Amino acid sequence: MEVELLAHTGLAADMPAVPGCTEADSVVIYAISQCYRARPNPNMIRHCLERGHHSVFEHIHFTFAVRGISRACLAQLTRHRLASYTVESQRYCDYTKKPVDFVQPDTIAGEAAERYRAFIEQAQDCYRDLRAAGVPPEDARFVLPQATMTNLVFTMNARELMHCFKLRLDPHAQWEIRELFARVRDLVRERAPLTFAARAAEEEL
Amino acid sequence: MEVELLAHTGLAADMPAVPGCTEADSVVIYAISQCYRARPNPNMIRHCLERGHHSVFEHIHFTFAVRGISRACLAQLTRHRLASYTVESQRYCDYTKKPVDFVQPDTIAGEAAERYRAFIEQAQDCYRDLRAAGVPPEDARFVLPQATMTNLVFTMNARELMHCFKLRLDPHAQWEIRELFARVRDLVRERAPLTFAARAAEEEL
Amino acid sequence: MEVELLAHTGLAADMPAVPGCTEADSVVIYAISQCYRARPNPNMIRHCLERGHHSVFEHIHFTFAVRGISRACLAQLTRHRLASYTVESQRYCDYTKKPVDFVQPDTIAGEAAERYRAFIEQAQDCYRDLRAAGVPPEDARFVLPQATMTNLVFTMNARELMHCFKLRLDPHAQWEIRELFARVRDLVRERAPLTFAARAAEEEL
Amino acid sequence: MEVELLAHTGLAADMPAVPGCTEADSVVIYAISQCYRARPNPNMIRHCLERGHHSVFEHIHFTFAVRGISRACLAQLTRHRLASYTVESQRYCDYTKKPVDFVQPDTIAGEAAERYRAFIEQAQDCYRDLRAAGVPPEDARFVLPQATMTNLVFTMNARELMHCFKLRLDPHAQWEIRELFARVRDLVRERAPLTFAARAAEEEL
Repeated sequence: MEVELLAHTGLAADMPAVPGCTEADSVVIYAISQCYRARPNPNMIRHCLERGHHSVFEHIHFTFAVRGISRACLAQLTRHRLASYTVESQRYCDYTKKPVDFVQPDTIAGEAAERYRAFIEQAQDCYRDLRAAGVPPEDARFVLPQATMTNLVFTMNARELMHCFKLRLDPHAQWEIRELFARVRDLVRERAPLTFAARAAEEEL
Repeated sequence: MEVELLAHTGLAADMPAVPGCTEADSVVIYAISQCYRARPNPNMIRHCLERGHHSVFEHIHFTFAVRGISRACLAQLTRHRLASYTVESQRYCDYTKKPVDFVQPDTIAGEAAERYRAFIEQAQDCYRDLRAAGVPPEDARFVLPQATMTNLVFTMNARELMHCFKLRLDPHAQWEIRELFARVRDLVRERAPLTFAARAAEEEL
Repeated sequence: MEVELLAHTGLAADMPAVPGCTEADSVVIYAISQCYRARPNPNMIRHCLERGHHSVFEHIHFTFAVRGISRACLAQLTRHRLASYTVESQRYCDYTKKPVDFVQPDTIAGEAAERYRAFIEQAQDCYRDLRAAGVPPEDARFVLPQATMTNLVFTMNARELMHCFKLRLDPHAQWEIRELFARVRDLVRERAPLTFAARAAEEEL
Repeated sequence: MEVELLAHTGLAADMPAVPGCTEADSVVIYAISQCYRARPNPNMIRHCLERGHHSVFEHIHFTFAVRGISRACLAQLTRHRLASYTVESQRYCDYTKKPVDFVQPDTIAGEAAERYRAFIEQAQDCYRDLRAAGVPPEDARFVLPQATMTNLVFTMNARELMHCFKLRLDPHAQWEIRELFARVRDLVRERAPLTFAARAAEEEL
């Protein structure tokens, strides 16, 4: 799995950052200060986090390029409806021409791993055979397993990210989506350290 | 594929239907009449359809129980974010105990169909082998193909249904989701014939 | 203020209610039972409430006709984005022809009340004078105060209603929207007593 | 009315812009190229606009500080639910301490303008009298007219902006929200000229 921060909210060219703050945190602070007709102040973020005024965190967005997650993980991710997704379509991809890779869970080890890899080969063989028999890609993909790797770009605002961290960084969450959001969290904390403050995030959890 | 109408918006016990109209259409008419301080009138629906005042159609919702669609189709369906989904989880299902079925596209026929069914057997064998080797269900499911049948309940309002009909009843849409929304359309037209009027729906298309 | 339940989710004609349950609660139970491939059981609702599985409560919707709230209250209500609104337009209403009423807060009493009512008269006089001078209704309404009564129809699902009850039944909420949601709560509890269980609702608060 | 671009989506520090493109347009192009496994190319934007693949335009967001619109205009703006708003609260503002200004429509001229300004004085006097009589700010504001100026910050993605331009730049739209979105359009076109291409925008209209 690769998770890359592709883009995020930054200040307009003529707007200065709040002293000592990143651009993303500054956007949140400016929104709060407008609301209260008060001078921008970094403490405003902590104040809103503590009081549960979470709507101000919707003003900053983060866009990620994700490569190499399973279709199983994708299905979980896209259940979060307050986000935007651009996903590589299996329907139009002819996997006899493009390489296709597969995620292998850590719990599948030793002999089970050999069994698993042999099956993955069978799936690819069957896909090729169906295509050779004239089955269109959109139907040949019916044999592709949940393990099939997929790529996507998604955009989410900071409020929804906080909500996802709460649900998906929980020890009961599935390992793959937990890893995805752990990486996402590290990427956004660097750009908006006040918004995604460690202490506040832990309280959430 | 089975698509059943489980529930839909109806009038409160003490509200009479607009004469000659179904309960669902009456709800839309009442909303419009409130907005314009005018007497309820069935023609109001046609008027709103023609003028593009589509928000009034958000007041009526329809809930469907869907059984036997592929995971591929599920992934397409759940991309529609203005809806509510309750989906059977593959993560907690142990398919060595519960039966699992698979969708077979019509384009996979003759020898290809034999090849396809043999592969489906291989997938089930591999799932069982992995479970026997101690792999948990949430990871064993990585071998389940996109063809795996799934069940779900979803709820959508009439405005979003109209939007889906436009996109998914198009000849370029994938056959399985086209069939799903064709059945959905027949079910909702019976309950809200003015809202989902044939003429208006065709104009949309 | 008048709040009337206009419509709500009911079972399709051929679906029986879960024994001992209302139609709305039955819809939630059916959605849960589908998800777990288990027999419908009224306890499923309590189970989901306690575990925080709130998405199943999105399957039932309630539609209200509200008459006689202030524009101030309307502005607060429509900030809840997960709902559908049909609002009487001030822009097209000519209030020299239609009666216009005004909300009077309880805190405005005694002499202040006389002062208030005199001002309301001034506002209506000014509206009429502007209309007489040829100002169109959409601009004459600029003099209408926040107290101006308005009518609307809104639809919200049970999950979002629970969220609104938490925010708007709080003692710190404004009195008018608190009264609105107190009435809404009484109306929905009658139709979905398990979903809006007193105990669970209090825990939320 | 003042409309200022406060922030918008920009590329992450280590991502180069697509040659000849702004940062915002580059984000859209990267999302599309990921989806099709194709090399980033400025023509991809026109292609998506023409084919109606609008979801890719959800990846870029724009945040505006708006000062001096009427409450009437605010009510229209916030009906767009696919956006984030941080609005100055009238409920907690004591307008005996902070200055309050009022929008005056162009149609109110000559003698009507004198009548209008006299009424605005009456509204302010009444507000002060009510406050002096002990009425709390949240209830005293009931006398404030729709003309009362308000400030807010809002964030919207490019897809929803296109939708608003279609509705709100229409000659039938109210003059104040038309002016608001005309300024918004000029601001975003500069940052994302391919996404908000003049030709495409006109076709939409």
